Amino acid sequence: MKDRPITFSIKTRSQKSRARTAVIKTPHGEIKTPAFIPVGTKSTVKSITPEMLKDLGAEAVLSNTYHLYLQPGPEIIKAHGGLGKIMNWSGPTFTDSGGFQAFSLGVALGKNITKFTSSARPGYDEISLKESGHKAGIENAMIPAKIDEEGVMFRSIIDGSAHYFTPKKSIQIQQDLGADIIFAFDECTSPHEPIEYQKRSLDRTHRWALESLKSHIENTEAFSRQALFGIVQGGRHEDLRKESAKFISELSHDGIEFDGYGIGGSFAKEDMMTAVHWVNSILPENKPRHLLGIGEPSDIIKGVMEGCDTFDCVMPTRNARTGTVFVNDNTDTKDKFAYINLNLKNAKYKDDMGPIEEGCGCYTCKNYTRAYMNHLYKAGEMLGGTLATIHNLYFMVQLMEKVRREIDAGRL
Amino acid sequence: MKDRPITFSIKTRSQKSRARTAVIKTPHGEIKTPAFIPVGTKSTVKSITPEMLKDLGAEAVLSNTYHLYLQPGPEIIKAHGGLGKIMNWSGPTFTDSGGFQAFSLGVALGKNITKFTSSARPGYDEISLKESGHKAGIENAMIPAKIDEEGVMFRSIIDGSAHYFTPKKSIQIQQDLGADIIFAFDECTSPHEPIEYQKRSLDRTHRWALESLKSHIENTEAFSRQALFGIVQGGRHEDLRKESAKFISELSHDGIEFDGYGIGGSFAKEDMMTAVHWVNSILPENKPRHLLGIGEPSDIIKGVMEGCDTFDCVMPTRNARTGTVFVNDNTDTKDKFAYINLNLKNAKYKDDMGPIEEGCGCYTCKNYTRAYMNHLYKAGEMLGGTLATIHNLYFMVQLMEKVRREIDAGRL
Repeated sequence: MKDRPITFSIKTRSQKSRARTAVIKTPHGEIKTPAFIPVGTKSTVKSITPEMLKDLGAEAVLSNTYHLYLQPGPEIIKAHGGLGKIMNWSGPTFTDSGGFQAFSLGVALGKNITKFTSSARPGYDEISLKESGHKAGIENAMIPAKIDEEGVMFRSIIDGSAHYFTPKKSIQIQQDLGADIIFAFDECTSPHEPIEYQKRSLDRTHRWALESLKSHIENTEAFSRQALFGIVQGGRHEDLRKESAKFISELSHDGIEFDGYGIGGSFAKEDMMTAVHWVNSILPENKPRHLLGIGEPSDIIKGVMEGCDTFDCVMPTRNARTGTVFVNDNTDTKDKFAYINLNLKNAKYKDDMGPIEEGCGCYTCKNYTRAYMNHLYKAGEMLGGTLATIHNLYFMVQLMEKVRREIDAGRL
Repeated sequence: MKDRPITFSIKTRSQKSRARTAVIKTPHGEIKTPAFIPVGTKSTVKSITPEMLKDLGAEAVLSNTYHLYLQPGPEIIKAHGGLGKIMNWSGPTFTDSGGFQAFSLGVALGKNITKFTSSARPGYDEISLKESGHKAGIENAMIPAKIDEEGVMFRSIIDGSAHYFTPKKSIQIQQDLGADIIFAFDECTSPHEPIEYQKRSLDRTHRWALESLKSHIENTEAFSRQALFGIVQGGRHEDLRKESAKFISELSHDGIEFDGYGIGGSFAKEDMMTAVHWVNSILPENKPRHLLGIGEPSDIIKGVMEGCDTFDCVMPTRNARTGTVFVNDNTDTKDKFAYINLNLKNAKYKDDMGPIEEGCGCYTCKNYTRAYMNHLYKAGEMLGGTLATIHNLYFMVQLMEKVRREIDAGRL
């Protein structure tokens, strides 16, 4: 196997759980794991500058292929020298495959999603996204995303235009975006789908994994500078999850395997760690594992103990913009990672002269009061979201540092 | 006269115009004049941090008493140690008197304003603000602001509640806010008012000027740390403008005069400099002159040449948030201050790989392209407004540096 652009070096293996500390080296710097990767959906971590992101200690950014494909377009980002260059972020970058959004943006937007076999085009599985309130003048219309064995046809949330993603197309777009770590194209099924659908979908995802791998290897220049992670699916079914973990970890083309793994799925919260446990029983230990779209601090801790290395989620940044911030709960003597959420818009903070969190070392807590934050949200001032985003991401960085310390000290 | 908290030292007097360069020393640092003072209406310069403001070279911030009185309230700001402390800005600060907004927020919001003599309460001049789309459930209602000889009764734009400002009240609020430079309470009339109204209003503004001065002197602690500027009004009438300039510049209480002057008014653009010319023929040279709410770069240049020292305006920051940025027009060989406005949302910038302005030294131009800015605006990303605000304020800072250089070199 040729030299790959990333390396994964395990430092400590926990004796108490599957947790491990490690370092992922990328062409744009190191990521100490377990790590939380902030999401910059549209090539910006919302409301903050890259300097703020670096100053608060974040080491990498994950952006969304679906959004960047629709706007500004991969050709524009490629012309800038890639995702990191256009957004002025010199550290490591990830892109997802776009599959999750292409299939399920209706779900992600909190809209209805229904799936049925299309009679109009035999051989297609059809997902209909019941959209409402969109820009494109398609309010309350059914917007179908059609899946066939080669890919998915979907409509843009920006203008309703039709697009078709295949594994090859997803990989080509991700090559143009130029992130250090990219993902194979997959279908993320709903946990509510019947087992027959899950099986059919998983077979398709596995075929797409191979096509993704082939497409990436074919572009030798991109292959030499971008790592490709395969994605394990399988819903909440033990046999499918294990089958998928085995298939993805053993898959190779020209003797070349995936550089790491993503664990995907739309989970019911109670099923999530069970599925991760099955998967990580099979995935090899010597490659990084990314738990896609997770999550809350409490879920991340569980994911770490099940052997996951990296995580991404919009929640810390999204919450911040609506006034919800994390604060460590030092009154909980049983859980060393206990935290609470505060809503800074609450009237009780109107004259609270303390920082968001006493003793917090972030820029926001060192310089601003809860009373000021409360005022900024009530006044509709953008600075409120900026300052809370800094705090929440700093909280996540500190949380992961603590996680790594606990693993290294043999306590997690 | 006791030691005052600010000093004004003229460095260069132009031989070609009334322009001068000077330094205003305040308890929180120096302001090199002529200077543009960025507006932080609600104790934040919208969309940027105080560090960004300092880094781009701004030396002071002007906030609005009306807004801060309504929210978070002067008591909250006082508890933080004043305006600078709550917003984490260590440099000089200004507050206006609140009069302009109390009278005319309807106008400022682009709404209809009508003025009539109230029959309901004899002795009052009544301004009715036709409001629409407000939060307070008062959509399309007439919200009267009532002026009597003692002050103005107005309704909150936040919740419709009734409030009454007098000169004493305005000064007390500004003392709590704690800015280095505060302003006397005045009425800013519409240029469309008849001469009879202008005269009656001017008499009232002059009485209020004395009451403002007295109120400030009475609070010896606040008086020792905050400079008070009197405001010259008089609409577009030469006799009234000159009368006002004479009255305000000669006004004293216990032998104490104003520390500087504000020049107020809702001007028709073509009248503005004529009025400023009349006023500055009379105002003493040894004190700073602030041209309130102005303005556009071209207006600022004219104001400088008429002898004004400081300026404030929301335009550079407001424009930035909607995508409009200043760029120097080096093709204009006649006007060394020529500039153009670009709208970064324009589709022609979609793939423009250049910075907003070639050669500009601001953070934004050094790190981002027009194409990226275009994408941020189209995507509704807050970072677009932040980056354009940095550019526009940097442009203003650079403009004023150039103005000072030109004056010092004897060319303006």
